[in-house]
Amino acid sequence: MGKRVRARELGIEIGEMEPGRLNAITDVEGVGVGQVTLIRGDGPLKVGEGPVRTGVTAIVPHQGNPYEEKVTGAVDLFNAYGKSTGLPQVIHMGVIETPIMLTDTLNTWLVADAVLDYFREHYDILPLSINPVVGETNGGFLNDSFGRHVGKEHVFKAIDIARSSKGMGPVEEGNVGGGTPMTGYGFKGGTGTSSRVYEGFTLGALVQLNCGRREDLRIDGVPVGREIEMPSPEGREPGNSIMMILATDLALTSRQLGKVAKRAIMGLARTGSYGGVSSGDFVIAFTTGRESVDDFLEMMPERYSRGLGEGFLNIVYRAAADATEEAIINALFKAETMVGRDGNTRYGLPLDQVAEIFEKHGRSLY
Amino acid sequence: MGKRVRARELGIEIGEMEPGRLNAITDVEGVGVGQVTLIRGDGPLKVGEGPVRTGVTAIVPHQGNPYEEKVTGAVDLFNAYGKSTGLPQVIHMGVIETPIMLTDTLNTWLVADAVLDYFREHYDILPLSINPVVGETNGGFLNDSFGRHVGKEHVFKAIDIARSSKGMGPVEEGNVGGGTPMTGYGFKGGTGTSSRVYEGFTLGALVQLNCGRREDLRIDGVPVGREIEMPSPEGREPGNSIMMILATDLALTSRQLGKVAKRAIMGLARTGSYGGVSSGDFVIAFTTGRESVDDFLEMMPERYSRGLGEGFLNIVYRAAADATEEAIINALFKAETMVGRDGNTRYGLPLDQVAEIFEKHGRSLY
Amino acid sequence: MGKRVRARELGIEIGEMEPGRLNAITDVEGVGVGQVTLIRGDGPLKVGEGPVRTGVTAIVPHQGNPYEEKVTGAVDLFNAYGKSTGLPQVIHMGVIETPIMLTDTLNTWLVADAVLDYFREHYDILPLSINPVVGETNGGFLNDSFGRHVGKEHVFKAIDIARSSKGMGPVEEGNVGGGTPMTGYGFKGGTGTSSRVYEGFTLGALVQLNCGRREDLRIDGVPVGREIEMPSPEGREPGNSIMMILATDLALTSRQLGKVAKRAIMGLARTGSYGGVSSGDFVIAFTTGRESVDDFLEMMPERYSRGLGEGFLNIVYRAAADATEEAIINALFKAETMVGRDGNTRYGLPLDQVAEIFEKHGRSLY
Amino acid sequence: MGKRVRARELGIEIGEMEPGRLNAITDVEGVGVGQVTLIRGDGPLKVGEGPVRTGVTAIVPHQGNPYEEKVTGAVDLFNAYGKSTGLPQVIHMGVIETPIMLTDTLNTWLVADAVLDYFREHYDILPLSINPVVGETNGGFLNDSFGRHVGKEHVFKAIDIARSSKGMGPVEEGNVGGGTPMTGYGFKGGTGTSSRVYEGFTLGALVQLNCGRREDLRIDGVPVGREIEMPSPEGREPGNSIMMILATDLALTSRQLGKVAKRAIMGLARTGSYGGVSSGDFVIAFTTGRESVDDFLEMMPERYSRGLGEGFLNIVYRAAADATEEAIINALFKAETMVGRDGNTRYGLPLDQVAEIFEKHGRSLY
Repeated sequence: MGKRVRARELGIEIGEMEPGRLNAITDVEGVGVGQVTLIRGDGPLKVGEGPVRTGVTAIVPHQGNPYEEKVTGAVDLFNAYGKSTGLPQVIHMGVIETPIMLTDTLNTWLVADAVLDYFREHYDILPLSINPVVGETNGGFLNDSFGRHVGKEHVFKAIDIARSSKGMGPVEEGNVGGGTPMTGYGFKGGTGTSSRVYEGFTLGALVQLNCGRREDLRIDGVPVGREIEMPSPEGREPGNSIMMILATDLALTSRQLGKVAKRAIMGLARTGSYGGVSSGDFVIAFTTGRESVDDFLEMMPERYSRGLGEGFLNIVYRAAADATEEAIINALFKAETMVGRDGNTRYGLPLDQVAEIFEKHGRSLY
Repeated sequence: MGKRVRARELGIEIGEMEPGRLNAITDVEGVGVGQVTLIRGDGPLKVGEGPVRTGVTAIVPHQGNPYEEKVTGAVDLFNAYGKSTGLPQVIHMGVIETPIMLTDTLNTWLVADAVLDYFREHYDILPLSINPVVGETNGGFLNDSFGRHVGKEHVFKAIDIARSSKGMGPVEEGNVGGGTPMTGYGFKGGTGTSSRVYEGFTLGALVQLNCGRREDLRIDGVPVGREIEMPSPEGREPGNSIMMILATDLALTSRQLGKVAKRAIMGLARTGSYGGVSSGDFVIAFTTGRESVDDFLEMMPERYSRGLGEGFLNIVYRAAADATEEAIINALFKAETMVGRDGNTRYGLPLDQVAEIFEKHGRSLY
Repeated sequence: MGKRVRARELGIEIGEMEPGRLNAITDVEGVGVGQVTLIRGDGPLKVGEGPVRTGVTAIVPHQGNPYEEKVTGAVDLFNAYGKSTGLPQVIHMGVIETPIMLTDTLNTWLVADAVLDYFREHYDILPLSINPVVGETNGGFLNDSFGRHVGKEHVFKAIDIARSSKGMGPVEEGNVGGGTPMTGYGFKGGTGTSSRVYEGFTLGALVQLNCGRREDLRIDGVPVGREIEMPSPEGREPGNSIMMILATDLALTSRQLGKVAKRAIMGLARTGSYGGVSSGDFVIAFTTGRESVDDFLEMMPERYSRGLGEGFLNIVYRAAADATEEAIINALFKAETMVGRDGNTRYGLPLDQVAEIFEKHGRSLY
Repeated sequence: MGKRVRARELGIEIGEMEPGRLNAITDVEGVGVGQVTLIRGDGPLKVGEGPVRTGVTAIVPHQGNPYEEKVTGAVDLFNAYGKSTGLPQVIHMGVIETPIMLTDTLNTWLVADAVLDYFREHYDILPLSINPVVGETNGGFLNDSFGRHVGKEHVFKAIDIARSSKGMGPVEEGNVGGGTPMTGYGFKGGTGTSSRVYEGFTLGALVQLNCGRREDLRIDGVPVGREIEMPSPEGREPGNSIMMILATDLALTSRQLGKVAKRAIMGLARTGSYGGVSSGDFVIAFTTGRESVDDFLEMMPERYSRGLGEGFLNIVYRAAADATEEAIINALFKAETMVGRDGNTRYGLPLDQVAEIFEKHGRSLY
């Protein structure tokens, strides 16, 4: 099946906007991503022992202490089946005050609890109250989920990486961090990222992809899932849930970010998902606030400053939908075949077949 | 440009489910649609005189008195820029008690008021309180909108048609009823409809399409808008807003219908919209309640009855997204070029070019 | 029963904050209130003729053109049974762009439509789209509601008054404007207002009171409704619904105003309402934005600037609850007994009995 | 100060409805409450060691396995500052599938995680996904909150008690369970409960009270907080947040329960709270579904079956507001003075003074 590449390396470019330098959420200045991946053992499930196919992803909104310098945030509960922590308070207060963590469902609460310890041991504050934001998708098809193998040390390490120059660099995709055991459209899913820039403004998306039915997969409109030739995916539930994180440097209000978050769902829809009943499809958005909306407006053609005083949001909406769509495709493109507990297997999306299907649809890739 | 046909007549079939007999919202038994179209005058805009390019669409949930036999309903305020009436109460009470009316923005309130009169004069009740549901999109590019040319008699006639065997038949699409002056993806838009059936359950969608940017138009994934060759659409705002109405006969609760309504947005997203800032993208859903969920479950494969007790909704979600997507395409396919006030012109989607673009993308249409 | 006075004239002072100069919503600089009252005819109901007991209230957020200088706004749909127009867009955009109108239920849509005309004829703009905010309660116990006697001329006059020095002065209470036929806690209700000031910041409330059961009425905690001696109120439904309008000059965001709006409900609860099933209890809040939050914070004791960065809101919450509570009591105190259609009668709250009951509860009034 | 009694033992009866046999949430058949209280150590705070003033409360909706027999539920996020887990999914799915746990803020996530273990070890299932509902208020004024002293064994024990005949009996109030270290209106707060019955239907409330300012406290309308003579409460924040749990046996839908939940806020308002900025005021409601709405309607006077088909809810609203109000007062009445970390002290509400103040207000208590 050859080397796994990002969508853009194969010539697939979603939408008309340009990606940032890294085509990653870390194109938003200050944002850092740290991922810790745990892969250990094989064979039959022994709860508490393994096989282990899990991990944790940390996203810091800036390199400082987010509890002291909270960032403006918002949430969209599109399909709110899921155990994420901290979301009602983000909606209520309009701010995020911790790193955003992504992991496997049943590990959610221990990860939230470990974030609390991190603040004491690394940020050197004793929080009287803190609102860890943890998102999750269910990796139980490959992982000993009940075993909750992500511990305090992994959480600490993920945040430490996110708070470093490495964390602000390129983001590993596929079977890494919280995305390690996940499934996307019946193929191996996981972590994916992408970004868009426009006149000095940047928006980045990072997804933990674990949703969708194979037949529904669309890549840039091409019905890849329907035409691919492969045996049906194992397991009665071919994956479920997706966490979508959006970061921008444009100083939007929480109300505006909430509307931007909804456009991630539009990007998701374009890849074929119907937002299934047992899927939890959440969007968490934040802004570092580095770029003022006024400066942004000055650089835009006049028509964008119209539109109810918020016409400039159209660019941001477009960036959110496109970057989310491309992040989902990147997750599929980079995730390699993985064998997990009880021999359960998820196959990586066969990129050679994707290229052939694109060819059939009049689109030559590299 | 030849005869205007529905998408399916050209060989475009959205998704894997079957449409109903009419491929229209009226496939849901008892649902009736009445449309009154007003086209009058040409030349420069004289407010209050014309040119008139407007109309009104009435959708009755059943052939009885909806105030006395209210239907379970729900609303999704995805992009809630717009003047629709009655929506907060539908969300609160979970029922709809009047016909659903669709018209031009500035005519919204007079249409709501006329619905009140209709109840006294035709349903023979003197309402002490009633909640007319009126949706709107802005037809001001072609129509003398401020003139508010839809009067009581047109509202009455539209409801009368909806309450008749004609109203329960095929639904006219394109430049009819409330959809008369509307724009879709820079082309002439208007009214469109479609439906899906599955084991005795039916879901229908009707849209009043007035949103989208030409370059963004996708038809079944094919980037038609980007490849079509035509001069840029006139008018700085190439249309905005869409009303999406969903009807089903499956006896869902209001909470379930609310989730179904969100899937219409996924159908919209697949046609290319980003849900622009000055667009109002609303979904109103109702059920006639004729088909019990229990009966439905008996006819389904076992896997559908799983999934948190609501696994069967996956079929309904799919029907909602697919029928909405196809209804949007039908509106574009059936709407003919129209010249309106001040000579403003919207061109019908050139179906021959659509066929060529599909051909280029490896998809031969008829 | 003697002269009708405001609660404070009898010595009832709600909460610990000071009212503004007028103890009215018009204490917020620039806010104007105009009320047109229609009282005509007696005897049996003849639909379309009378008896007429109705009116309309206009609240302008400032003396300029609100469409061009929109004000930040928010809405709380606590008990969303009701036909108000414009609320979803206020929630979505976070702004209000027209006067806020209050009237009788079935007149809602004609009032909204008349607001549109007002903009052309008085503000000299031809709106292509506008979002009139109209609130309503149901006056049908006394008024020929179906007759919809509030016409364009009354709407125009109410807004004209609101846009004048008279409109910025004291606000008439009781049987005036939209409040004319309304019922409160089984007594005659109607329009009421109150305000609070604190270190240069002002918040005002205006209510159109039409809700509550007599036995539940509490005045500053005293169970007046339970102890008053009067025959049971006529009519099976002793009134329902309340519109609560909050205005402030503090430059809050829409998200913050939304939280302030919820505190009006707490003020309502203290007067005894349970938010009944057929009651529509809505709050609409806006800010003129004249006073910056930063200036406000400088004048406050340090402890108020703490509290999640929004500690200062505690003062605003308190003002909102207290002013709403007192506005409700003022409506009851000022509304005189009224006889309406079919001889239906609502009695004014007997203030002498109120004083006696307060006395019994250890509280001597004047 | 004498023996601490419940409000009703002193003659304070909130509202006109009757309480159930126990005047507790456990009057709802099958509902069980288990509380584990941890009080250990004195003197200066040593994080991780103590002093310990904490605990955990478990509420089981029935004596079976709630994951397998989920109960219909709803949530009101009135003032959504707080770290509760599981609430978005309850809103989304309309069901609760675990015991509801109440504890100290920073212990929230470990309690949620322990609930997961309980299902494996006691209900004998291996959950692949589960949504523990944990509510919290902040006990840090008296407790070593960061120490997170509530462990798995305490969670297990609390649920075990709730699942027993003891758990279905009278509920201990005051300094017990999750309520152990809490503050209410500047006095010692904690756990409180009350119930209402009507023609075979029962509704119970249980609160974990930790909010309010002393001066604002009202007891049945009497301004006790303003008139009581005591030194000002220590600590700059005199307590914050309240969790309100409602249980009923009436088979309401999730949409209806959501409206019932809002009435708990009205009960809270009557005790004087303004819903402060750093307060988290949450309501979680569920129904055991034992009593059908149809049966209930048959036993009611006709006027209750009217009102939009939901007129019967008025009784349920009243029960929710009244039971919540009384539960809050019971928490204050039963909670004894407590000294905690660093000698911090909260004084129990002086009941003798309460009686005197009532006397002054014309109300003789026993």
